[in-house]
Amino acid sequence: MRMVDIIEKKRNGGQLTEKEIQFFVEGYTKGDIPDYQASALMMAVYFQGMDPEETALLTQAMVDSGETIDLSSIKGHKVDKHSTGGVGDKISFIIGPLVASAGVPVAKMSGRGLGHTGGTIDKLEAIKGFNVEITKEEFIDNVNKNKLAVAGQTGNLAPADKKLYALRDVTATVDSIPLIAGSIMSKKLASGADSIVLDVKTGSGAFMKNLEDSEALAREMVQIGNNLGKQTVAVISDMNQPLGFEVGNANEIREAAAVLQGENISDLRELSLEIGAHMTVLAGVYSSYETAYTELEKNLDNGRAFDAFRTFVQAQGGDTEVIDNLEKLPKAPFDIEIKAEKSGYINAIDAASIGVAAMYLGAGRATKDDQIDYGVGITLRKKIGDYVKAGEPLVILHANEDNPEDSAAKINEAYSITDEQPDKLPLIYKVIKE
Amino acid sequence: MRMVDIIEKKRNGGQLTEKEIQFFVEGYTKGDIPDYQASALMMAVYFQGMDPEETALLTQAMVDSGETIDLSSIKGHKVDKHSTGGVGDKISFIIGPLVASAGVPVAKMSGRGLGHTGGTIDKLEAIKGFNVEITKEEFIDNVNKNKLAVAGQTGNLAPADKKLYALRDVTATVDSIPLIAGSIMSKKLASGADSIVLDVKTGSGAFMKNLEDSEALAREMVQIGNNLGKQTVAVISDMNQPLGFEVGNANEIREAAAVLQGENISDLRELSLEIGAHMTVLAGVYSSYETAYTELEKNLDNGRAFDAFRTFVQAQGGDTEVIDNLEKLPKAPFDIEIKAEKSGYINAIDAASIGVAAMYLGAGRATKDDQIDYGVGITLRKKIGDYVKAGEPLVILHANEDNPEDSAAKINEAYSITDEQPDKLPLIYKVIKE
Repeated sequence: MRMVDIIEKKRNGGQLTEKEIQFFVEGYTKGDIPDYQASALMMAVYFQGMDPEETALLTQAMVDSGETIDLSSIKGHKVDKHSTGGVGDKISFIIGPLVASAGVPVAKMSGRGLGHTGGTIDKLEAIKGFNVEITKEEFIDNVNKNKLAVAGQTGNLAPADKKLYALRDVTATVDSIPLIAGSIMSKKLASGADSIVLDVKTGSGAFMKNLEDSEALAREMVQIGNNLGKQTVAVISDMNQPLGFEVGNANEIREAAAVLQGENISDLRELSLEIGAHMTVLAGVYSSYETAYTELEKNLDNGRAFDAFRTFVQAQGGDTEVIDNLEKLPKAPFDIEIKAEKSGYINAIDAASIGVAAMYLGAGRATKDDQIDYGVGITLRKKIGDYVKAGEPLVILHANEDNPEDSAAKINEAYSITDEQPDKLPLIYKVIKE
Repeated sequence: MRMVDIIEKKRNGGQLTEKEIQFFVEGYTKGDIPDYQASALMMAVYFQGMDPEETALLTQAMVDSGETIDLSSIKGHKVDKHSTGGVGDKISFIIGPLVASAGVPVAKMSGRGLGHTGGTIDKLEAIKGFNVEITKEEFIDNVNKNKLAVAGQTGNLAPADKKLYALRDVTATVDSIPLIAGSIMSKKLASGADSIVLDVKTGSGAFMKNLEDSEALAREMVQIGNNLGKQTVAVISDMNQPLGFEVGNANEIREAAAVLQGENISDLRELSLEIGAHMTVLAGVYSSYETAYTELEKNLDNGRAFDAFRTFVQAQGGDTEVIDNLEKLPKAPFDIEIKAEKSGYINAIDAASIGVAAMYLGAGRATKDDQIDYGVGITLRKKIGDYVKAGEPLVILHANEDNPEDSAAKINEAYSITDEQPDKLPLIYKVIKE
């Protein structure tokens, strides 16, 4: 078998066989197939696509290229949740305890990564004492005892995907739906869960800007999961503005905790219940989506979800005083109002610019060695559809200085104010199950 | 400027600017741009193409990546001729002396390369004493004196093309008309001629199998030449069977010499006159194609073209006794008839298989270190449209052994015999001038 023939076959619109896909992924992982042939194949895939069978085979080959996490010693049906990423997305901190409170085991491995704010485990470290570097035994014990644990990702999961993604990034071959789907799903499938719920974001602040692409990506991922024997559900949700009102690290934890205490921050509560309902149904805890939704709502309102959060934090060494008094979470010294320059309705909020503003304040990492400042962040005072008077604050910046000009400029860029009230945006567009 | 942005622009169907193309070609030649980005760009070009302006810019950048040959000390308008390659193509050996006999300077640099038979300079070396390793001064003197010289190609011409072609070869990105055109033209343009006549082959034995692709390639090359200030004409000629009757090295020289002596080997004579007419018109020697054609015909019939050949061989150290008595050219000891298995009309002759049969006899080089046997080769006895009786010879193999089985099998593969007489194939399909 020769790599050049595989490239030519795909270039001509052919369907690659299991052997050809394995030959490529194994050879590329080992370094036998050079980058220049891999990038030519990726560009051919960009133009010719891959059918669901090829995409599943590619994903499986990438899973097989490295270690897989064995969660079999955790009792019950493990459901994993993955978001394609957005600004202010603190749904994981709500979902984990919420689903755990219904008896579904959540064993979450997460990375740090680069971004506008920290990743899941960075944000948790905003809680004094919280330890993500627990052993595999502690991790499994915690899940068995409390139904919830979060650990830093260790192990060499889907190294083929890692190598290929780095190559795609510098060869303009990222924007291919089967390749994006395969990349995400290979990491999820290597993580050992029994079922998967995907939160696929759509809109100006998402990787996929329009519903059509988001739906195509969602379908592709659901097909991969189902083809490879893991039941998968995708929720397509809005990312035309940040989720909730808080963007940062500690302030996102605070907002998630508020939702867990029953506070009705509508988009966060609704999306968490939606995703939680699918997770608990997949886990077999509830027989229908409607029951699941109602029961989970109760757990937000009766304190059980918050209790699960408290127990989880305590089990991983976090200071429960912080949880009982969320004002003790880190907080930057300056609160600066960014005011509307004119009156009108908020027509759009560019989530990416809000993210960059948070990054400028110190909430994220541009390079691996950057330190995250847990206490900085942004509180949105106005969201799409709200009316604002000239001079009223659009956001509050939580900063370490009294005049964070770069961030303020980004906020002004992000908000667009018009005379007419815009249509209300849906929060959830579609649920894809097959 | 970032290479990834250039790749993305082309991937999205954009037109690359002069700066972008130069950035790529210079960076790639120097090694600053890695192979994996170059191959991704080549695959994007495969799908999105390049317009005539981009193609000309790419070609110019590849010319500029290395040395160019300065022929300015040769008097007169220098016209180069290039064939896209075929089996039995000895037109260069006829054209050179023919055009020289009309007073047009021909300064040909040529490589050895790999192939079914030797290249131009290998075939000339079949003439005892012929020396292609002449100095630049001798080369130029010879052209000024005799209007014709052929030398082995020295110098680092279009190194960007060389590097890029090697990459395209292993990444399934060869079959792109603008890239093929740019590759051929960059080498021609670096060779210093004032005008260029291209012999673009079409048919089963050519790189371009159908007329549409051949015409597209011809147009692309003519546009590049004209865009870069070198008047260029392309003749699209048939390669559905070998040219003439001889395939090999010494036997091709012998056949070319016969045409120069006025023998009417119809396809060779006709194609040589066609190409020669365009070359002499471009050089300004004749004012019209018709005059040129008639005058060149005279030079074939009155011995002037052959005299030019003899003078050229003598000037480069070749033994004129061989030229005066062509039977003294090397000849293999065994002549083996390959006979028709049934009676009928020759419907097709797969030129590539004839080429492989010649290669098996020892006429070509599979690797750089192989030695060429000048005396072996193939004489076709039947061409398309001829009638053959069962048992009559199709070809004569000139071999070093009495039973060259592999070659014989290839000949049987190459010939297809049918009951109905096929339509006559045109020799020249089209002439493209702009």
